[in-house]
Amino acid sequence: MRAMVLSCTLKRSPEPSNSEALARIVTAELDTLGVESELVRLADRSILPGVKTDMGPGDEWPAIHRKLLDARIVIFATPTWVGRPSSLAQRAMERMDAMISEMKDGVPVAYGKVAGVVVTGNEDGAHHVIGEICGGLGDIGFTIPPQAWTYWNKGPGPGEDYLQTDYRHDWSAKTGRQAARNLFKVATALRAQRFEYAQ
Amino acid sequence: MRAMVLSCTLKRSPEPSNSEALARIVTAELDTLGVESELVRLADRSILPGVKTDMGPGDEWPAIHRKLLDARIVIFATPTWVGRPSSLAQRAMERMDAMISEMKDGVPVAYGKVAGVVVTGNEDGAHHVIGEICGGLGDIGFTIPPQAWTYWNKGPGPGEDYLQTDYRHDWSAKTGRQAARNLFKVATALRAQRFEYAQ
Amino acid sequence: MRAMVLSCTLKRSPEPSNSEALARIVTAELDTLGVESELVRLADRSILPGVKTDMGPGDEWPAIHRKLLDARIVIFATPTWVGRPSSLAQRAMERMDAMISEMKDGVPVAYGKVAGVVVTGNEDGAHHVIGEICGGLGDIGFTIPPQAWTYWNKGPGPGEDYLQTDYRHDWSAKTGRQAARNLFKVATALRAQRFEYAQ
Amino acid sequence: MRAMVLSCTLKRSPEPSNSEALARIVTAELDTLGVESELVRLADRSILPGVKTDMGPGDEWPAIHRKLLDARIVIFATPTWVGRPSSLAQRAMERMDAMISEMKDGVPVAYGKVAGVVVTGNEDGAHHVIGEICGGLGDIGFTIPPQAWTYWNKGPGPGEDYLQTDYRHDWSAKTGRQAARNLFKVATALRAQRFEYAQ
Repeated sequence: MRAMVLSCTLKRSPEPSNSEALARIVTAELDTLGVESELVRLADRSILPGVKTDMGPGDEWPAIHRKLLDARIVIFATPTWVGRPSSLAQRAMERMDAMISEMKDGVPVAYGKVAGVVVTGNEDGAHHVIGEICGGLGDIGFTIPPQAWTYWNKGPGPGEDYLQTDYRHDWSAKTGRQAARNLFKVATALRAQRFEYAQ
Repeated sequence: MRAMVLSCTLKRSPEPSNSEALARIVTAELDTLGVESELVRLADRSILPGVKTDMGPGDEWPAIHRKLLDARIVIFATPTWVGRPSSLAQRAMERMDAMISEMKDGVPVAYGKVAGVVVTGNEDGAHHVIGEICGGLGDIGFTIPPQAWTYWNKGPGPGEDYLQTDYRHDWSAKTGRQAARNLFKVATALRAQRFEYAQ
Repeated sequence: MRAMVLSCTLKRSPEPSNSEALARIVTAELDTLGVESELVRLADRSILPGVKTDMGPGDEWPAIHRKLLDARIVIFATPTWVGRPSSLAQRAMERMDAMISEMKDGVPVAYGKVAGVVVTGNEDGAHHVIGEICGGLGDIGFTIPPQAWTYWNKGPGPGEDYLQTDYRHDWSAKTGRQAARNLFKVATALRAQRFEYAQ
Repeated sequence: MRAMVLSCTLKRSPEPSNSEALARIVTAELDTLGVESELVRLADRSILPGVKTDMGPGDEWPAIHRKLLDARIVIFATPTWVGRPSSLAQRAMERMDAMISEMKDGVPVAYGKVAGVVVTGNEDGAHHVIGEICGGLGDIGFTIPPQAWTYWNKGPGPGEDYLQTDYRHDWSAKTGRQAARNLFKVATALRAQRFEYAQ
């Protein structure tokens, strides 16, 4: 079973990313369950605006799209900006919009796949980010397992970043490991099921 | 397998409810799959404010809570008011908040259950209502199957209610039947899985 | 100039409310600006479900509605439950829905009034609560001043309540005093303006 | 008085944009009120990811930022993708995040400016898009006038685009003209006020 992490930090490599650092805890747990993870940092790629799988010359989304098709587990790792998922997270969802009408075995390609979210921020807003992403991915055809997320922030008001402190990293890590197990359990359960689609 | 519909209309019986009418299409499809459904209209019950399972004398939530424990599939049917889930939908989520720490077989009681949403409104807002409810229920431990919802509305601007017209009822019905099948498939898949909880 | 605080805690008096405690800081600042505030705790009143200003016998909303008409500044003070405004906050917005079509001087009665939000919670979610309430009130005709809110919470994960600690109360208080000033400034500015309505 | 429209369509010029077409109705009304509008299509510019006003070589945001400082009225015109504001709308908000700490006359530069939203989509979701954008802009320091938006869509389910039909264009136009008047009235009222900032 394969997992794919879409890292939606606004920073290009090799700048360290808070949300990626937390996502690594989730993928480490997936690794113990035999799930191989790949992380793609979207800020390093040229992902053109649009809602088709291939937006033409210079578009690096098609390669990411192929990896998504191979993965059973998709994880968005995103910072919180202005209280919302990053523009790169929204860009990825726009490009995944095309998957609604891409069919495999008679159902949308995302059926049978599960999705989770990892969020960091220096203030408040993680649950909203999680809700926005899971809401969009459910429309595209992903299944959202129970408590399939973790986050780190520290309100009220602005403060330190995740990588600048150790404050409650333990809670975020424990919650992330549980998210990994839940993603794995539901992905495993769905593998044995065959969806049907009558539309 | 049992399903439970929480009808969150603001109207008391026997006033007809638009969202209930659409929910009946989902439960009719569940019926063909061998799933028995029960619908509870929350406006007919006294559901006290609070976040415990039993808020004391006069509280009719405990009986609903017992039914929720028996159901594998939980469906919120709600109107859209001021663009949001009704106050009775939020009331139900507040009361279900206690389920986060109610454990069965070592995991939260909602693990292994799936949830879906049915929304009506005379304008715009259904996807937001779906996102709000699914976001909350995911936190409580429900799994959200792919495209586990249907809705009916008709923007832009205010207009007729669902029961006042036949406009695109076919789309909402077809989408609702697909939601029923997806809820059933994922609920069936999860029945064979045993979750673990390390916290 | 008069302000009205709708306290949306789920607790009945005389139980102490975290969001009310923080709201008192905002109203204390309004007091220094010559604005008289009244706080109504909705949990103490019988506010029937519905979207009309008067839902009939036993409905205590009409008296609150009259106070809203007298106020230039309306503040929602609400806890965060399942990441969302409380069911009493949504109940109030549903009842205020009727104000969209109540006209005064040729425009909806809320035109010229301003709204703000005070949120507490033991975790994450304040900005979403603020966004949900301001989004609804903007539709009803309120103006939302800049940074017209304050909040207190302390992620990641569940923790203490506002009244159980002093952690960063200073930030929440300072932000609340600024919100009071912004509410007052915009309310004052709007008093001199006459809106027009062509619909 | 100057207005600025940030056009957040995913399409590059000269492809026609639905949300731009509807925004032109709002700016036409502003024109009758003596407000000069400029529309910038973000998809035609290179707007680098980040949360600073100038992200370095190749970044075309600084020129847009200067125009924002000159405008009293800022309007986001955006399509609805996966039920949310476009990635270019979120990109703009991320870049505007820096304005929270840019001060003029002792207050954040957005104080005294007003914001509105124009949304199109081929389905449901406009109010959520409006709420997301207004929520973010309120945090940055904009004032949100009453009913400062218009939209066009047509649920339930996917359907035609705004420019493919005339269905209820009259409602969207009338609502957009009212939004223009409300933006103008509140911007005018705020011009006479001097905000204070104690933080």
